Amino acid sequence: MADPSGGIGIFDSGVGGLTVYRQITARLPQESVVYLGDTARVPYGTKSPETVVRYARACARLLIARDIKLLVVACNTASAFAMQALQEELAIPVVGVVEPGARAAAAATRSGVVGVIGTAGTVSSGAYPRALAAIAPPVRVVQRACPLFVPLAEEGWTAGKVPEAVATRYLEGMLDEGIDTLVLGCTHYPLLKPVIAQVAGPAVQLVDSAEETAVAVARVIAERALGNPGSPATTRFLVSDTPESFRRSGQAFLDRELDPVEWVDF
Amino acid sequence: MADPSGGIGIFDSGVGGLTVYRQITARLPQESVVYLGDTARVPYGTKSPETVVRYARACARLLIARDIKLLVVACNTASAFAMQALQEELAIPVVGVVEPGARAAAAATRSGVVGVIGTAGTVSSGAYPRALAAIAPPVRVVQRACPLFVPLAEEGWTAGKVPEAVATRYLEGMLDEGIDTLVLGCTHYPLLKPVIAQVAGPAVQLVDSAEETAVAVARVIAERALGNPGSPATTRFLVSDTPESFRRSGQAFLDRELDPVEWVDF
Repeated sequence: MADPSGGIGIFDSGVGGLTVYRQITARLPQESVVYLGDTARVPYGTKSPETVVRYARACARLLIARDIKLLVVACNTASAFAMQALQEELAIPVVGVVEPGARAAAAATRSGVVGVIGTAGTVSSGAYPRALAAIAPPVRVVQRACPLFVPLAEEGWTAGKVPEAVATRYLEGMLDEGIDTLVLGCTHYPLLKPVIAQVAGPAVQLVDSAEETAVAVARVIAERALGNPGSPATTRFLVSDTPESFRRSGQAFLDRELDPVEWVDF
Repeated sequence: MADPSGGIGIFDSGVGGLTVYRQITARLPQESVVYLGDTARVPYGTKSPETVVRYARACARLLIARDIKLLVVACNTASAFAMQALQEELAIPVVGVVEPGARAAAAATRSGVVGVIGTAGTVSSGAYPRALAAIAPPVRVVQRACPLFVPLAEEGWTAGKVPEAVATRYLEGMLDEGIDTLVLGCTHYPLLKPVIAQVAGPAVQLVDSAEETAVAVARVIAERALGNPGSPATTRFLVSDTPESFRRSGQAFLDRELDPVEWVDF
């Protein structure tokens, strides 16, 4: 069972989940965190459900061996495919990013037409339409997989001609459908928020699930009396590829140095 | 030791190595081939040398258990980082794609300035400059990592505004340096050949190492008397992620159906 003095475990396929990490530590500064980026096998978004579930289980196992009290699946693709398996199999609470993102979108839309962009895996899973149907039945969902957004963000091409052309090609069909809310259904996409906002126009509100996920984590901790009883809050970063590139690209997400970063083989 | 009745083992991080597979089977139709695409861990081009070497060793082990007589490292990044380790550790001959590509470029250049494009890993390894220095000392090499080319090819955006803008941004600096030969140092890039050729202009000759690699394989087989003594030639495709997406995207490389494709866990 979960021990309140344990940390919050967060995993993502790479650095993208740091957007979720940042919101969680801002909201719960007294909690220790173990963040795992599966950088040797990144990305998850192009892989099959079977492979993503297998990797998600391996990430969860590794974090549980580090005595976490709650698991956050900070990757949309892993949340889309593996939430049910993890919630059934683990003895600690599990929070994903899809349900909080869907809730934020349902609260934001006025037109009742919500756009969702994400990886090929997230979109094909239908996880967002299912989650939105469970919250607000009359919402209509328009989805689009945007496989080039992750490499664009990782290349650092977040402004200018290329990202504008890519965003236009991905979004124009969705805009024609009358969306007024757009879920950034991948933790990398907040890095492209300015160009996505520019192409989408001022009438479309962008929803990033990181903040809403932190709200959900805080709620679960309160409800289950899992708040840290007083141990000093620590942060550990674990990665499956070498730490250097994670340290470097992680800075773009956190605007500060990441340390220590430990290499784990699993 | 290598047994002539065994097949040729080819591995790549995914489907890209099929460009090499195609050249090998065209040149050596009497030989059996086992092709392994490590689609669960693709891409290699963004990973560290340590991780790429680890994956390359695992691929080699799996193929050797299938009784291959010769190993082709059809991935530029794996060739760049793991050739030495594989050649030292394996009892069968190993052929990579970097040395054949370098040889083709050295033969093609008139100006003595050769451009090399590839993944971040291939470029940072310095494998092409080293190989070119060993063949033709006076050649000057200009390199550029092009991380967006692989996702563009996989998205199927091989013509139009976006790939043109991306190719222009990657290549303009190299063209200013006076290259007259450009090595497509990643097995995915031949899919973007038309747009790369258009941006590079008619004065620049594109070199794709697949054909030259097949020449090298045929030479090694002849030199070591490893030609198939008469068993029927077979083809097997192995993948570490589920077969469906490999089958689908493999068709873009081979213009025919891929069958059978077997899922292997390693």
